[in-house]
Amino acid sequence: MAKDKKLVESITSRDVDFAQWYTDVVKKAELTGYTSVKGCMVFKPAGYALWENIQTELDRRFKETGVQNVYLPMLIPESLLDMEKDHVEGFAPEVAWVTMGGLTPLQERMCIRPTSETLFCDLYAKDIQSYRDLPKVYNQWCSVLRWEKTTRPFLRSREFLWQEGHTAHATAEEAEERTLQMLGVYADFVEEFLAIPVVRGRKTDKEKFAGAEATYTIEALMHDGQALQSGTSHNFGDGFARAFGIQYTDKDNTLKYVHQTSWGMTTRLIGAIIMVHGDDDGLVLPPKVSPTQCVVIPIRQNAEGVLDAAEQIAGALKAAGVRACVDGSDRSPGWKFADQEMRGFPLRIEIGPKDLEAGNCVLVRRDTREKLTVPIAEAAGETAKLLEVIQADMFDRAKKFLDGHTYEESDYESFRRTVEEKPGFVKAYWCGQRSCEDRIKEDTRATSRCIPLGDEGNRVPEGATCICCGKPAAKLVYWGRAY
Amino acid sequence: MAKDKKLVESITSRDVDFAQWYTDVVKKAELTGYTSVKGCMVFKPAGYALWENIQTELDRRFKETGVQNVYLPMLIPESLLDMEKDHVEGFAPEVAWVTMGGLTPLQERMCIRPTSETLFCDLYAKDIQSYRDLPKVYNQWCSVLRWEKTTRPFLRSREFLWQEGHTAHATAEEAEERTLQMLGVYADFVEEFLAIPVVRGRKTDKEKFAGAEATYTIEALMHDGQALQSGTSHNFGDGFARAFGIQYTDKDNTLKYVHQTSWGMTTRLIGAIIMVHGDDDGLVLPPKVSPTQCVVIPIRQNAEGVLDAAEQIAGALKAAGVRACVDGSDRSPGWKFADQEMRGFPLRIEIGPKDLEAGNCVLVRRDTREKLTVPIAEAAGETAKLLEVIQADMFDRAKKFLDGHTYEESDYESFRRTVEEKPGFVKAYWCGQRSCEDRIKEDTRATSRCIPLGDEGNRVPEGATCICCGKPAAKLVYWGRAY
Repeated sequence: MAKDKKLVESITSRDVDFAQWYTDVVKKAELTGYTSVKGCMVFKPAGYALWENIQTELDRRFKETGVQNVYLPMLIPESLLDMEKDHVEGFAPEVAWVTMGGLTPLQERMCIRPTSETLFCDLYAKDIQSYRDLPKVYNQWCSVLRWEKTTRPFLRSREFLWQEGHTAHATAEEAEERTLQMLGVYADFVEEFLAIPVVRGRKTDKEKFAGAEATYTIEALMHDGQALQSGTSHNFGDGFARAFGIQYTDKDNTLKYVHQTSWGMTTRLIGAIIMVHGDDDGLVLPPKVSPTQCVVIPIRQNAEGVLDAAEQIAGALKAAGVRACVDGSDRSPGWKFADQEMRGFPLRIEIGPKDLEAGNCVLVRRDTREKLTVPIAEAAGETAKLLEVIQADMFDRAKKFLDGHTYEESDYESFRRTVEEKPGFVKAYWCGQRSCEDRIKEDTRATSRCIPLGDEGNRVPEGATCICCGKPAAKLVYWGRAY
Repeated sequence: MAKDKKLVESITSRDVDFAQWYTDVVKKAELTGYTSVKGCMVFKPAGYALWENIQTELDRRFKETGVQNVYLPMLIPESLLDMEKDHVEGFAPEVAWVTMGGLTPLQERMCIRPTSETLFCDLYAKDIQSYRDLPKVYNQWCSVLRWEKTTRPFLRSREFLWQEGHTAHATAEEAEERTLQMLGVYADFVEEFLAIPVVRGRKTDKEKFAGAEATYTIEALMHDGQALQSGTSHNFGDGFARAFGIQYTDKDNTLKYVHQTSWGMTTRLIGAIIMVHGDDDGLVLPPKVSPTQCVVIPIRQNAEGVLDAAEQIAGALKAAGVRACVDGSDRSPGWKFADQEMRGFPLRIEIGPKDLEAGNCVLVRRDTREKLTVPIAEAAGETAKLLEVIQADMFDRAKKFLDGHTYEESDYESFRRTVEEKPGFVKAYWCGQRSCEDRIKEDTRATSRCIPLGDEGNRVPEGATCICCGKPAAKLVYWGRAY
């Protein structure tokens, strides 16, 4: 047992040092690895499998809304990046530049895509002529590169994986509708599949995307009370269309500019899964995204019939659609328990000689440690049911945490104290001025996460004043420190 | 009908100019598009959907053999690329170099991966310590970049999509076994899923991969009689392991080098589908890879009940697992037929008022133009059956073409004449000398495609002589001009 204990003890506790806990979990659960490429991470099988599951489900949801996948080049000529003023200012300082092709210096340098608005515009300018060519609802799954100075696995890496949707529409209304539709797809996906509750809102002008008219966001709350922007959807209006000359002939035979959107989700989501659900024994994965949903662990596996029974149970689980496996390695059961807990697989089934004699096996939940003894013949059905319960419970717990860590303040001193002492979201009214946002950040390191959608953010009660300057309020804002 | 005709006439005939026919099909079937990025292509929805289907099926087959997916960085520091001598010589002249990160010149330049052997070695050197860590059977789906001078859609592009498998094993035997296993996976996939017959063989030393001990290949024959290398699998022995210091402690407590393999398939396969199966009316897609398998086309769709019947048929097809859609656009039926034929969807179902009255619909095969009238109620079942027949027939036709264009020659004059006059493979004995390979290429532009696996390539009958120099033969070789 000494060895088993060590495996567990080697993770820092979340309360002692959350950042170190995160690093420990990522390493011990073998999600990532390192190479000599500074600032870039390796997605190991356990980490990449999470992304594959995210991708499969999100892609399915995209296609239900009419999205078509495409693939565009990874290189962007400098002249193309330069075409939209705000966009180039936002990205030029953080791109990697290719200056040599083979042995020859390039006439024009090219950057590795930090995002592909300019390339999609270049394509749309060629492909869109008539109203018949609209809408275009394209998406691509790819990697992008931004020359970050400090990096952390999944959360901030020079290269990361994502999807970027880029659409073109005949009217401003249709573009706004698609922008909000995709925000909804994101929010539903994160809540239903990753069991992470989110706040849906709009970014302030200061925080919006370079070149966008409006940026919408979903914001999640990590266990340490810091926010994580988990998906964004941008409405570009016709700004890019004017810069790139993307025009179509409408039914009335006049030339019009298209209206565009883009929306993206990244491998950051894996960081969110870790930081929302993990505990001091390691990862805790929601059943829907977990590559393995149930590990069958034989106790005294050399005793007659035990390993066979374990294999039979796993077989029945698989037949019931559960992603299951048997840990038949030559480690001790204690080591196997600790390993399954570290990797966060939502359920294990223990089966030993005594259980076998009684015709039972024991289901153990990763999230609550609850144990449930069930007849072997009912293991598959019970597991399938229990996985659904776990998924729902994990969401409920995270929702309670989010609600319990969302505060509301109306005077600046209390606001500052709450940000400092009670990590979480703080709701407070704001006048709409950039200068107040800047000052709040300077004073508290909290930023405006979003103006919540609907009445809450936009219907300001009479007499409400800005938390910072005291002038009449324009919006309600969720503030918080963020990753 | 004038407009319909024009759509079809605008493709060059294969016999007039095969290269132009290829370009026409790629464009008219909307597989690719262009941006300002020279030498790189855009995968439009119809082109990318083919790659998605290839990826899904190949990935499933990989995982059945124990492959795990990972993702490694896209950048390779120059010092890492330099570590294996043959490898760097093969790739350094054709990579793109990143020299600036943001506003700062890099201390060491990095190339965009042309392939990732060096990165996997870098990872394995860190992660492999003990025999318990073996084997590693990793794969990644990504894009790579090679600074090609002349490019053609799918066949040769600066950036292309592929998968690259990289494995590490305890013994040379196990590595050789995996190399051949993956060649088998490739060959089966291409024959069963893409309906393209292949020759399985080993490359000569001249043609093998930079750094490999042995390269195995599958070679397909295009409609113009030129060969297309369609997948390769390499055995590296312990060459890379020695260069990168990848050692493990074996059960006997001694340090040993690992043995490695790599294997890859690319978006070139889409070029093969086009050039093996296409005809003068456009693309012809094998049912298994076709994004849409059946288009239901209403005739006089404004007549009562016709569009409803079309939708009902499509619904029944989908319920039967067929990827189906209705073309309910405001074009003429003739235009729709030509469009479906151009895009290569394997079946269409025509349904008009007269059919409806008789309770029938008409199935039309894309590959043979055969028509089959069936009761509407049986449309789904007949379609599912017919798709299987089409898949099998397409393979058989391609196999007959391959066999009918494979020649055998034993004197050099006939060999030269056959290469010149009868495009295809020419089987001929070879002494094993590089000088003869070089001369054959100079004289005929044919290269050694492969030494076929098994007895045919390696058991040389007594008295057989090299087709070029007349000295005793060592191997049988498939020769041919190639893409």
